Amino acid sequence: MRNIMVTIEYKGTNYCGWQVQNDRLSIQECIENAIHKITNEKVNITSSGRTDAGVHALGQVANFHTNSSIPIEKIPGAINSKLPDDISIIDAKEVESHFHARYSAKKKRYRYVILNSKYKRPIHNDFSYLVKYKLNTDKMIQESKYLIGEHDFRGFMSTGSSVKTTVRTIYDISLKKEEDLIILEVEGNGFLYNMVRIIAGTLVDIGRGKINMSLKDIIESKDRNNAGHTAEGKGLFLKKVYY
Amino acid sequence: MRNIMVTIEYKGTNYCGWQVQNDRLSIQECIENAIHKITNEKVNITSSGRTDAGVHALGQVANFHTNSSIPIEKIPGAINSKLPDDISIIDAKEVESHFHARYSAKKKRYRYVILNSKYKRPIHNDFSYLVKYKLNTDKMIQESKYLIGEHDFRGFMSTGSSVKTTVRTIYDISLKKEEDLIILEVEGNGFLYNMVRIIAGTLVDIGRGKINMSLKDIIESKDRNNAGHTAEGKGLFLKKVYY
Repeated sequence: MRNIMVTIEYKGTNYCGWQVQNDRLSIQECIENAIHKITNEKVNITSSGRTDAGVHALGQVANFHTNSSIPIEKIPGAINSKLPDDISIIDAKEVESHFHARYSAKKKRYRYVILNSKYKRPIHNDFSYLVKYKLNTDKMIQESKYLIGEHDFRGFMSTGSSVKTTVRTIYDISLKKEEDLIILEVEGNGFLYNMVRIIAGTLVDIGRGKINMSLKDIIESKDRNNAGHTAEGKGLFLKKVYY
Repeated sequence: MRNIMVTIEYKGTNYCGWQVQNDRLSIQECIENAIHKITNEKVNITSSGRTDAGVHALGQVANFHTNSSIPIEKIPGAINSKLPDDISIIDAKEVESHFHARYSAKKKRYRYVILNSKYKRPIHNDFSYLVKYKLNTDKMIQESKYLIGEHDFRGFMSTGSSVKTTVRTIYDISLKKEEDLIILEVEGNGFLYNMVRIIAGTLVDIGRGKINMSLKDIIESKDRNNAGHTAEGKGLFLKKVYY
């Protein structure tokens, strides 16, 4: 059987997230149905990780096994012809049988977009988290640096997931202001449930002066109550998965 | 009566365009209804110009007359509270009685976004025109310079509008490649019906080698048949109106 790795871009607005659920349409389901239509096989597609409702991907990675003989360069176009406009396969590669989109992943990079504007902005609406308060971006940039390195991020995790360890390593943080947008990017070896959204929410709360504790102390406290709110899903993008 | 000038951002995807039509919802209608809800007045709002179905605005300008005494700084928030998420008033000013959003306009700047990608891209889908052919961006940049200056743009106009003259002046052209996006901006004293979309379509046809005639000669020929296709509305943004 061939093992196919695909890179996927999607707009998460109209989905319950990556994973199949009973009540609402998921990204996974749409892609599995599209593959079924072109291969006549019931495949199970495995992603690098779930994304929640409303969350987008610029470079989600997933793999599936197939007996189909469709040439690899025809796969994105063929699957895309059966997908809605808000999901697209942007690359496909044939990989070794032991490759697993989740377990083989070494690093991930997320983007989080904050729209700092007095009024709602239709062009950015589906792709950003609107914050109307004045934000001190310089302070947010300074504080964000404390995230770099290996830390126990227990305070930056929502309940509802079971993990062996809450220790993760952040390799890179970037926070930039581009007109009304504040663009945060975080790269790490793994992320806890809602970790990027809690990081974004905490930086917003620091930026508006609602939290006065330093991010360094919040991390060290390992207490979810010291961190900020969970920022909205629609500002989050899974940007890249590294193998 | 007060004369109120508003700046509006909108995502045109779900509308028939600016102007009220019988069958589908228009931007104008939504804003007039919202103003009616907050002032209890039936107002008529005049924009700097119509935009077509699917076309967006980053800075459309319009004005309306009202007897309402709502303080000017409260107007955007009040109207926005009655508008759907894809239309937003981002500024309001009180102007002299003779100000007219259309007749007082001196210059306009449009943006046109081309997505040059092998596959559809969900994040950009509503806000760009997908071109799958390989484009020679350098050639497009060179050729675009011929647009600058005063020309008879008769060859760059769709039928369906009556104008006294087809002579317009283009003050500035910018064409930049940002990853898969090719971003064209055009500033001029006025634009004929579909002029920016025909300019974009002609540049695409030149960039893919379908048109070999120089843009200089196409303009001089004043013949619609020599220009390229009309690029899709969803790539077009009215960026700014100057008074």
